[in-house]
Amino acid sequence: MRLITFEKRSRRDRPRLGALLDGDAAVLDLTAAAPDDAALGSLQALIESGDAGLDRARELVARRPGAAVLARDDVRLLAPLPRPPRLRDCGLFIAHLESGLREMARRQAAGAADPAAEFERLMAGGTFDLNPLFRERVMYYTADHLSVGGPDDDVVAPTGSKELDFELEFAAVVGRTGRDVKPAEAPAYVFGYTVFNDWSARDLQAVLMRAGVGPCEGKDFAGSNTLGPCVVTRDELTDPYSLTMTARVNGEEWSRGTTDGMEHSFEDAIVHLSRDRAVHAGEVLGSGTVPSGTALDLGRRLADGDVVELEIERIGVLRNTVRIP
Amino acid sequence: MRLITFEKRSRRDRPRLGALLDGDAAVLDLTAAAPDDAALGSLQALIESGDAGLDRARELVARRPGAAVLARDDVRLLAPLPRPPRLRDCGLFIAHLESGLREMARRQAAGAADPAAEFERLMAGGTFDLNPLFRERVMYYTADHLSVGGPDDDVVAPTGSKELDFELEFAAVVGRTGRDVKPAEAPAYVFGYTVFNDWSARDLQAVLMRAGVGPCEGKDFAGSNTLGPCVVTRDELTDPYSLTMTARVNGEEWSRGTTDGMEHSFEDAIVHLSRDRAVHAGEVLGSGTVPSGTALDLGRRLADGDVVELEIERIGVLRNTVRIP
Repeated sequence: MRLITFEKRSRRDRPRLGALLDGDAAVLDLTAAAPDDAALGSLQALIESGDAGLDRARELVARRPGAAVLARDDVRLLAPLPRPPRLRDCGLFIAHLESGLREMARRQAAGAADPAAEFERLMAGGTFDLNPLFRERVMYYTADHLSVGGPDDDVVAPTGSKELDFELEFAAVVGRTGRDVKPAEAPAYVFGYTVFNDWSARDLQAVLMRAGVGPCEGKDFAGSNTLGPCVVTRDELTDPYSLTMTARVNGEEWSRGTTDGMEHSFEDAIVHLSRDRAVHAGEVLGSGTVPSGTALDLGRRLADGDVVELEIERIGVLRNTVRIP
Repeated sequence: MRLITFEKRSRRDRPRLGALLDGDAAVLDLTAAAPDDAALGSLQALIESGDAGLDRARELVARRPGAAVLARDDVRLLAPLPRPPRLRDCGLFIAHLESGLREMARRQAAGAADPAAEFERLMAGGTFDLNPLFRERVMYYTADHLSVGGPDDDVVAPTGSKELDFELEFAAVVGRTGRDVKPAEAPAYVFGYTVFNDWSARDLQAVLMRAGVGPCEGKDFAGSNTLGPCVVTRDELTDPYSLTMTARVNGEEWSRGTTDGMEHSFEDAIVHLSRDRAVHAGEVLGSGTVPSGTALDLGRRLADGDVVELEIERIGVLRNTVRIP
């Protein structure tokens, strides 16, 4: 199934759980189709209900009761999980991290008399080497799960930033709560997959990360984590590690990568992140950025009004408009 | 009021909201006293209900219906907010951060031929200077709001760690959801205050923070954030910035400080953290550690079985036992 959270355009009431039908041209309003079933009241409730809720949703999708089928244009998509219980962004694509460090060294060298020589000197110095921890284990930072936006939302640069950037990421939604998950059990902990844009205010991030406590408002601002357009359930995405990922800006392709470049899998992340603590049903794990999946990596820069579309094959397009006041 | 979340020892059912009475010798079971009132079902619900719920709770505390009064020994305290919507630890005590950096330099210098000279060299080098950002703004890291423990819980060192440490912190609970809070409005956003122990696995933290994304499992493990014993409402703590803070280990005083050493207030934090995004009712803001409020700062080390008591005047004692398997 291709599960969504949406509002009807005609009337703003509480968000509903739905499923995309007919090549995404139609929407089944699962909440309206089963008003008595709390498991179909939201995607979070569906995930927490386990197989019973999923079976009920599948049965409704197969039966498609006419009164609950809406045209795609009559609804506004929200983030599939507008308030996930937790959101962590993991370093699963390691090559991206290395290219990001090279770009940081390049920027630092740009002011030197001989920038090329200064870049070589900086890279040889070790400060811009990727920490070997990223290969040995699943590193992550805790993103702001209360700053989630959805498809079609505008993303506004926070105060003090003029350099808003996208990050093209794949994400998994955890399907059950558990601790000390064994590798053989990990696949069953994946509920499904979505597209994640880890919006970043590069100018603030560069300054704030020097303090050593994390990106702070360089990555935490209203709507700074966009998710969507839907969560594709695991049964429909049988080979998640061979999907093409693209980023387009105003229709022009800027980035292209593939999920087969992930050095660690989501299953690795679930095993690692469930050691000595629980993973929780509904929490979202970002992959980290695919190599070249940011304007920063490409030496480019977004402008006010740019439309950024992140697409992952078989999941869909997550589209947002950039606002730089 | 001194609000708690508790279980009855006789029968483990769902956690209840209560208030400490009679110098903490008795507990009023607010949930049982008003079974029809959803606002008294949990501390989170009470905070979200605003003044209406608080007025109802105050009325019950004044009337103290006999059937809902329990002896303190008949209940087990949980964290007052076992699952706050978010938990961030802020750098409000700056002197502590400087002493932590000095201790890190001392440890790094310890292996040198002349440790004292090496320490001076390191401190002069600038790497161990506190970033001026900590004075200019409220820096923070996002702690794991799903890894919260309460009073009397054991805290177990995570796999790979032999150096579990406490951090003596003051914390505020946010009372309402809002964005772009003005300084004059900020006091009204504080619901109350509690004691926070930001448990840290120093050995893991030292290694993992070098990767630059945050402390990861150096600070994120089951029960790594203990809160309690109660949340004292703002009206009862009219001068929160003149409270004595102490840490005792097995009854011996290790640390002593005061909240008047905070360079930034919780109100400053609320103003800063509500810029370009919301603060949420029920979220917890840690103060950061009071100077010398850790074993690390004191050059000491906790052992398996140690009992750590953090006390803040007029709030109470948060007691946990250390387990290092």
